[in-house]
Amino acid sequence: MNSALQRRQFALVATVFQVLFGVLYAVFCRYNTNAMPFGSASRVYVNTDYPLFQDIHVMVFVGFGFLMAFLKRYGFSAVTVNLMLSAFITQWATLLRGFLTQEFIESGKFTISINQLMRADMSCVVVLISMGVLLGKLTPVQFIILAFVETSLSILAEHIIFNILHVNDGGRSLVIHTFGAYFGLAVALVGHKTNVMETDSDGSIDHSDLFSMIGTLFLWIFFPSFNAAVQQPEDARHRAIMNSYIAMSSCTMVTFIVSSLADNLGRFNMLHIQSSTLAGGIAMGSVANVVLYPYHAVVVGAIAGLISVVGHVYITPKLLETKLGIFDTCGVHNLHGLPGLLSGIFSIYFVLHYEPAEYGRSVHTFYPYFAGGDLGGDRDAYSQALYQLAGIGVTLVTAITGGMITGAILRMNIWNQMDDPLNSYDTNFYGKSEFNFLNRFTEEDEVDGSDKRNSRLVVY
Amino acid sequence: MNSALQRRQFALVATVFQVLFGVLYAVFCRYNTNAMPFGSASRVYVNTDYPLFQDIHVMVFVGFGFLMAFLKRYGFSAVTVNLMLSAFITQWATLLRGFLTQEFIESGKFTISINQLMRADMSCVVVLISMGVLLGKLTPVQFIILAFVETSLSILAEHIIFNILHVNDGGRSLVIHTFGAYFGLAVALVGHKTNVMETDSDGSIDHSDLFSMIGTLFLWIFFPSFNAAVQQPEDARHRAIMNSYIAMSSCTMVTFIVSSLADNLGRFNMLHIQSSTLAGGIAMGSVANVVLYPYHAVVVGAIAGLISVVGHVYITPKLLETKLGIFDTCGVHNLHGLPGLLSGIFSIYFVLHYEPAEYGRSVHTFYPYFAGGDLGGDRDAYSQALYQLAGIGVTLVTAITGGMITGAILRMNIWNQMDDPLNSYDTNFYGKSEFNFLNRFTEEDEVDGSDKRNSRLVVY
Amino acid sequence: MNSALQRRQFALVATVFQVLFGVLYAVFCRYNTNAMPFGSASRVYVNTDYPLFQDIHVMVFVGFGFLMAFLKRYGFSAVTVNLMLSAFITQWATLLRGFLTQEFIESGKFTISINQLMRADMSCVVVLISMGVLLGKLTPVQFIILAFVETSLSILAEHIIFNILHVNDGGRSLVIHTFGAYFGLAVALVGHKTNVMETDSDGSIDHSDLFSMIGTLFLWIFFPSFNAAVQQPEDARHRAIMNSYIAMSSCTMVTFIVSSLADNLGRFNMLHIQSSTLAGGIAMGSVANVVLYPYHAVVVGAIAGLISVVGHVYITPKLLETKLGIFDTCGVHNLHGLPGLLSGIFSIYFVLHYEPAEYGRSVHTFYPYFAGGDLGGDRDAYSQALYQLAGIGVTLVTAITGGMITGAILRMNIWNQMDDPLNSYDTNFYGKSEFNFLNRFTEEDEVDGSDKRNSRLVVY
Repeated sequence: MNSALQRRQFALVATVFQVLFGVLYAVFCRYNTNAMPFGSASRVYVNTDYPLFQDIHVMVFVGFGFLMAFLKRYGFSAVTVNLMLSAFITQWATLLRGFLTQEFIESGKFTISINQLMRADMSCVVVLISMGVLLGKLTPVQFIILAFVETSLSILAEHIIFNILHVNDGGRSLVIHTFGAYFGLAVALVGHKTNVMETDSDGSIDHSDLFSMIGTLFLWIFFPSFNAAVQQPEDARHRAIMNSYIAMSSCTMVTFIVSSLADNLGRFNMLHIQSSTLAGGIAMGSVANVVLYPYHAVVVGAIAGLISVVGHVYITPKLLETKLGIFDTCGVHNLHGLPGLLSGIFSIYFVLHYEPAEYGRSVHTFYPYFAGGDLGGDRDAYSQALYQLAGIGVTLVTAITGGMITGAILRMNIWNQMDDPLNSYDTNFYGKSEFNFLNRFTEEDEVDGSDKRNSRLVVY
Repeated sequence: MNSALQRRQFALVATVFQVLFGVLYAVFCRYNTNAMPFGSASRVYVNTDYPLFQDIHVMVFVGFGFLMAFLKRYGFSAVTVNLMLSAFITQWATLLRGFLTQEFIESGKFTISINQLMRADMSCVVVLISMGVLLGKLTPVQFIILAFVETSLSILAEHIIFNILHVNDGGRSLVIHTFGAYFGLAVALVGHKTNVMETDSDGSIDHSDLFSMIGTLFLWIFFPSFNAAVQQPEDARHRAIMNSYIAMSSCTMVTFIVSSLADNLGRFNMLHIQSSTLAGGIAMGSVANVVLYPYHAVVVGAIAGLISVVGHVYITPKLLETKLGIFDTCGVHNLHGLPGLLSGIFSIYFVLHYEPAEYGRSVHTFYPYFAGGDLGGDRDAYSQALYQLAGIGVTLVTAITGGMITGAILRMNIWNQMDDPLNSYDTNFYGKSEFNFLNRFTEEDEVDGSDKRNSRLVVY
Repeated sequence: MNSALQRRQFALVATVFQVLFGVLYAVFCRYNTNAMPFGSASRVYVNTDYPLFQDIHVMVFVGFGFLMAFLKRYGFSAVTVNLMLSAFITQWATLLRGFLTQEFIESGKFTISINQLMRADMSCVVVLISMGVLLGKLTPVQFIILAFVETSLSILAEHIIFNILHVNDGGRSLVIHTFGAYFGLAVALVGHKTNVMETDSDGSIDHSDLFSMIGTLFLWIFFPSFNAAVQQPEDARHRAIMNSYIAMSSCTMVTFIVSSLADNLGRFNMLHIQSSTLAGGIAMGSVANVVLYPYHAVVVGAIAGLISVVGHVYITPKLLETKLGIFDTCGVHNLHGLPGLLSGIFSIYFVLHYEPAEYGRSVHTFYPYFAGGDLGGDRDAYSQALYQLAGIGVTLVTAITGGMITGAILRMNIWNQMDDPLNSYDTNFYGKSEFNFLNRFTEEDEVDGSDKRNSRLVVY
């Protein structure tokens, strides 16, 4: 028998947060003067960032939503919880980043414009990656708590990496992909319980994989926008687009090749195609602004595809599942974790490989503490390489310890927990809506009085 | 037994209209000189409006098409009739708006550019909203007649509201969302017949709801573009984007909260998620250019989500269906009607709330008859508020009377009518293609000679 | 029993090509200086072409992928092979076009920027069109060989048509749509074998057609971007957008009308709606930059819709299938072949119809050999018309002979071939993954040791 507190827990927690957000917006947040009268906004202003923003918006809401829709019982949950969490995170991330601005420290207010919307959308990706590990293991209220904590920690890590360590992570592969993957895995490690997936005889049904391909393809298509969106100056942004495009192509070819090699009959594996084809964009993330030669992009993409498929074939079943007991629902470790780490390693390699002079004046935009820049820094390539390494370290330490603590918090019985899937094996998601997000649900709880549409579809 | 006239009615009527459009284009329509040689078009010109136009294009054809695809028997009809009607309306709306331009009155010709394509696409939305009420109740030929009449009336209402009353409805919530919803409901009231949906044991099947989410998500993502597309000047357009984005986020959170509260087990309802999450963008429409503070956008979105879900839970079943006997197929009243009205009310509130000085010179773009503008107007905030109220009135009166007259026209037996669903309960949409849009269809009518592909899939 | 060579053939061939691409990129390809430090890139630069590029990117990967997803057994193959081939072609096309540049001839290196990405994406479309004819007839390794040869020949034809014959084919209807369609048909003619489709009792299942509509709609929406992307100068690009938009609308109306007339009960045929609605954009391709009056666009679209549906109803079953024995899996001849030819014919008509003076100085951009241009040409409208005719001829001759030779190559037994579908009638794509791309597959070959996810889904 569920208590009223359990049934209303999500509504209560979400309301508290939403009211808090409203109050914080009211007190601290204003629009950028470019959005205001007398501002210098020209008609071109909106178009400069807006199309890139919308590409990322599609990635967050359609791309990630449908990418996770391949699970038999979780198609709706993936798409709708994705929407809910993203709506939550965009607000919290915007506020948090505002509090860290120089403007806020000086004036007690911060301003936002389209650039801040892009960054808020990118913060959603951190949590959606972790959700890929945890889908089927957490209730909506747990996801809300997770999103609150993880967004806070990831923006803290971002702040340390960019503003204190002055690390180059232009396409955000460290602070988004690597952070999200290892945070999620750490939550799964600590908060482990048997997942519904693990008891499913087969994980997907026919059409679900086509829905999932909608997600994959929109992520694939717009990855150059993701890696380029917040890059500066414009030549770095242009390079980020080109490098990502080329790396995606070579990564895709290598994914098909290695997937075929990994099958004893030479066939392709849909899971690899749905995820590893994207690894090239992630591996390019941290270095998208610095790679200067197309063939370097080809190589980066190829290595990413190789490592991602190898991860699916060996590392996930042999290490994560068997040794650590982590069931990574969507293969996030191979899609975001390994390629993100790889991107960090590339960022060390390329800072040592290229001559700083090749970048001209732009060099101080992505390596702001290099000797000769406005910040008065004194780094050379070698010391910057050490800072890049420190960036990987900060990311992993923050993500893993933060994830483990969050996992411990989420295990607490005050939160609604998922049913044990072994006892609800035959729940029918669509038929009678018996499957729900309360932990000790019994059918008699349902007061039958809902009209036709109310019984139509209920997620979780 | 169907007469040849019945079987060929759609082709006949559609041909007459298409020939008419061709002739009107030939006699009256020219391209804008910017699209012509010697024009001042720079390479930036196309990009200024074009990306926003394409966002709206996706909303119209993918967004609305798939939003209505959740119905078991009407998935194909929703998507294809959506496409057909939109192709029809873009032509008719472009012509009609041209006839109302000063340029046409002076020279007997009017010119079009990308801006006119945006407006034509927005006119499609009016009819697609009404189609959401009427899906499953009208045959294609009836939809064509409806589109012709409704587009004409909505552009007339738009002309009165903008050019005669000088009302601010920047994101078009009154002349598009409110108009489309109440027009459709009025048609359903007068032209009522038992709907296929009402006899369906359950309205959706498993995957259909995922298709529907494709529609919802693309509408959600691009709503800022919709509200901003035709805004001027650029600071208003920038605000429209930001306000819509923030309102969408808070509305989505509130939708999940209220949907959970409305269920006795605290679960989410897919119908609410598919529609009410969009209410924030609609409620923001009329005021997207004037709201100056982010937290006002948070509040507008939250109220919209609340009212929309309450509409689904109480108003539709208790008032519309029981009292008025209107079966609103897609819940359009709660998705477009109530939030649209709400937007009108906000437009009254905010004109009184903000100081005109806060807008600087932009104020005369959205309140063109304010004292001090080029039109020589003499309004202050209070009198503008009364005009905003008049705008709501004009919208409702035109939509409801127009819809009732259209409903009466569509009931006439000269048009093909839908079969009584009670007698065609077990028609199999896919199997034998027995289900069709003729009203007294008998299977013997079918002359079997169609090849494999001809029998593949037939809509309506 | 399959040999190791057969099982590893795809991996081997694909690896050879990918390594070759990497080497060629390393030796010959550099980024445009605009993407490099000290370049003149302004923040506006990226936005000038990038949004149009992304529209085409969506068409290639989502549009074509899902357009072909309507086949019962080939939904996954369509989407994934589409992705693989496109990743392959973007690399090869970029290299080939680079080798044909003046820059490469002079300096031994060529540079790329976003414009080259657009052109690479457009080259994918050539092969994806041919794939529409051949889906279900070729194995992945055969598709790779096909893509290599066809991309080479189509870029050769493009080079002849643009740089030697100075033909106007702004939206690339000749060198992309016509070439791709007739190349594919020629391959099918020579390499004919019974297709899986031909033995299928019905070609599509319920939801597959909704997936297919995702493809159709994204192609429909972004067709103006496709026809406009590489147009110059800006007034031609603007006209290309407007003309395509208008032609798409009138073509869609005519498609519904003729589809209804072609059915003895006046119903619409899903196949026509999925393909013929796009014919307007293709028929407009070659002339999108030169048509100066909106009603000409209306007429072009209407004729295209008429001819495309007539092709589906009469030409495909009566000529292609019965006389020539070509089973055109996706109706490519009516979607791309006939409308492409039509576009070539319109390009002859319009060069004779309009006065060159009407275009102002832009005329030498699309008719570069007209008297008075920089190239010192001496053509008038009449001689240009003959060159337009020659352009059609070159396209058809290259495509058909190239396709027949390729078909002969692909028949060679060194390549993996599809199983005879008559012997694998009851293969279950999803269940046991028995269906694969090897030609003499027996179930005993499968060493059962794959984990749950490996057996999840295997394409081909």
